[in-house]
Amino acid sequence: MPRNSAAEARKTREAIVARATDVASVAGLEGVTIGRLASDLGMSKAGVIGQFGSKAELQMAALDAASQAFVEAVWTPAADKAPGLPRLLAIGDAWVDYVARPPYEGGCFWTAVSTEFDTRGGPVHEAVRERGQQWRKVLRREIASTIDAGDLPTDLDPDQALFEFESIPMGLNQSIQLYGDTRAPARARTALRRVLGVET
Amino acid sequence: MPRNSAAEARKTREAIVARATDVASVAGLEGVTIGRLASDLGMSKAGVIGQFGSKAELQMAALDAASQAFVEAVWTPAADKAPGLPRLLAIGDAWVDYVARPPYEGGCFWTAVSTEFDTRGGPVHEAVRERGQQWRKVLRREIASTIDAGDLPTDLDPDQALFEFESIPMGLNQSIQLYGDTRAPARARTALRRVLGVET
Repeated sequence: MPRNSAAEARKTREAIVARATDVASVAGLEGVTIGRLASDLGMSKAGVIGQFGSKAELQMAALDAASQAFVEAVWTPAADKAPGLPRLLAIGDAWVDYVARPPYEGGCFWTAVSTEFDTRGGPVHEAVRERGQQWRKVLRREIASTIDAGDLPTDLDPDQALFEFESIPMGLNQSIQLYGDTRAPARARTALRRVLGVET
Repeated sequence: MPRNSAAEARKTREAIVARATDVASVAGLEGVTIGRLASDLGMSKAGVIGQFGSKAELQMAALDAASQAFVEAVWTPAADKAPGLPRLLAIGDAWVDYVARPPYEGGCFWTAVSTEFDTRGGPVHEAVRERGQQWRKVLRREIASTIDAGDLPTDLDPDQALFEFESIPMGLNQSIQLYGDTRAPARARTALRRVLGVET
């Protein structure tokens, strides 16, 4: 009988992935090394690598975990709201909250990793791009349906609004993480409403 | 008499710094290693390190060069324009052009490096933060004086406008580098004008 049960193996795997997302938020996914995780978690390198097989698989597991955390923080609470403006503003405000109080040491995981991998090739770049595109598609659909519902100015271009909407969390992350600007979350909420042409 | 004249030494130094800014735009400043530069430039490691003394000094030299390139591309052409809206829009449009056709392999040097160092301590973080704050001060002054000149809506909050204005190049860089969106520069120009409350 193996010493670790399946439940214990799963717990170990989750702890490694949680540490990997934290490290990536500070040092990027390239900073997620087997040696660093083993040292941080008091494990052997063999114990870490045994869970994943390769660094690339570990990076992908960190991406999956961060995707799930983002969806749970930003999309899930909004999904219960009425479609249209209430849901769109719920998404925006949850996104601001998520960036203002990220569940990672180094601020927004996605800003760190998408900037790190934007101009590199390879499977991590592709995975980051694909997940970003999926989220953009959801967001564009919500913006377009809110315009169709008559909740937003009819001359609002959904692609233009999408571009501006998703720029704001990036500006917010920099204002908080680089400049320590505590007024930035309120500015980001105002900015989202200005982008949508909604009174603040 | 030393084999290299002062002019040759300066040229060598410039070539190393130019390569360092290119590498940093792709792989971050931590990716700028003496070994990588020596290999890329066909030099010995001693030849590279001899110009700078340490990796930290080389990183600072790359920051200085990138600062100067940004100022020359974005501020210098605008400085000749009439103060007020013409100058502010010239800054914005030059910034869009700079991000759309960055002089580096990996897109905007500043987006890469400020995201890389935002949550780390140390002299590189401080240098990035300080240069960012200097630029923000210039931009806020231009926005505030344009409001005072009556060229912008009088109820525009300069700090709010600054936050939104500087978010746009970040969104643009991601749209281009991660998603390859060729319509993003036009959207960024429209967004800048919307932020300022100027007709497009």
